[in-house]
Amino acid sequence: MFITLEGPEGSGKTSAVKIVVERLAKEGYSIIQTREPGGTPIAEQIRDVILDKANTALDPRAEALLYAASRRQHLVEKVWPAIKEGKIVICDRFLDSSLAYQGGARGLGVDEILNINLFATEGKWPDLTLLFDIDPRIGLERINKNANREVNRLDLEKLEFHLKVRETFLKLAKQYQDRYVIIDASMSIEEVAEATYKAIKDKLNAN
Amino acid sequence: MFITLEGPEGSGKTSAVKIVVERLAKEGYSIIQTREPGGTPIAEQIRDVILDKANTALDPRAEALLYAASRRQHLVEKVWPAIKEGKIVICDRFLDSSLAYQGGARGLGVDEILNINLFATEGKWPDLTLLFDIDPRIGLERINKNANREVNRLDLEKLEFHLKVRETFLKLAKQYQDRYVIIDASMSIEEVAEATYKAIKDKLNAN
Repeated sequence: MFITLEGPEGSGKTSAVKIVVERLAKEGYSIIQTREPGGTPIAEQIRDVILDKANTALDPRAEALLYAASRRQHLVEKVWPAIKEGKIVICDRFLDSSLAYQGGARGLGVDEILNINLFATEGKWPDLTLLFDIDPRIGLERINKNANREVNRLDLEKLEFHLKVRETFLKLAKQYQDRYVIIDASMSIEEVAEATYKAIKDKLNAN
Repeated sequence: MFITLEGPEGSGKTSAVKIVVERLAKEGYSIIQTREPGGTPIAEQIRDVILDKANTALDPRAEALLYAASRRQHLVEKVWPAIKEGKIVICDRFLDSSLAYQGGARGLGVDEILNINLFATEGKWPDLTLLFDIDPRIGLERINKNANREVNRLDLEKLEFHLKVRETFLKLAKQYQDRYVIIDASMSIEEVAEATYKAIKDKLNAN
């Protein structure tokens, strides 16, 4: 079982899922939580190039290819081996983030970004994608309040960019209804965690 | 005018072209010689990940995506601006190397590698591709004799790999006859340089 978490910056998905993972682990599920680059050294080296604030000259297409490369390495070294061992893998951001950020918001085209990512994933899709949906104005406000979190290059993008990200995510949720569940991330962290727990349990029980 | 140089390791293409570039420059052509990553800092960072001897876990598909990303950055920052200024750009290795190494020799498929590279190049092709063709046994022997050149991860690949590289290059030369010229790289460096000079001048005079 491969579950991915998607949503704009500051949607609180990471905090909510931490609660849910602990709860599922207590129930006896063998579950690992990861995020690209997932502690795999090569994927981290690639991620460093993408997020380096000095790399303002990074071309959008090069950026998209780097995300696909980092994704591939993380899948091969960490995600697929864990799934093969029968574990539930929950991944904080995945392919749909590239579709929304590079494909939609940067205007490279969702289909073109999907194309290079299907090369990376060999056409495999997540079983469940949770979209933590929130107005980016609220999301960015949350980030700015959180002094412990370092602001990276992506946070500095303009609001318009983040509005396009949201719009693309909502389109994807409609297009891929079979794997998408939308969580209203404007709720309290406890309510978001509860909705997340329910969505995952529904999927586990359906299998 | 965009000219690319291709061929197996140790084909002597770099030495031959150095001579030709000096000759063309003396004739008054505005010409720049480059190679990926071409001194563009981001492309170099990407190249470092690919060639790092410690990265034995680098997945072949991730490697292919990294080459495409480095290529894109080099095109955008260096090659295309120079061509726009009316310069002749000669690039030591380009897209066809990915097709031969990753597509052919690593068995990922020439069409699949072409697909992700067309995303990087936006479908633009070189005007002229010179294939420095040589039996890899001779090419590898030349490398081993040259103590000044550090052996990298690619040099360590087995002979069979390099035979497949050559085979794919020769197939590409047949498929893309309109832009390919084959140079017999088993000749002396002076003869190779002369053949290279002739091929480039023919192309320049034809335009």
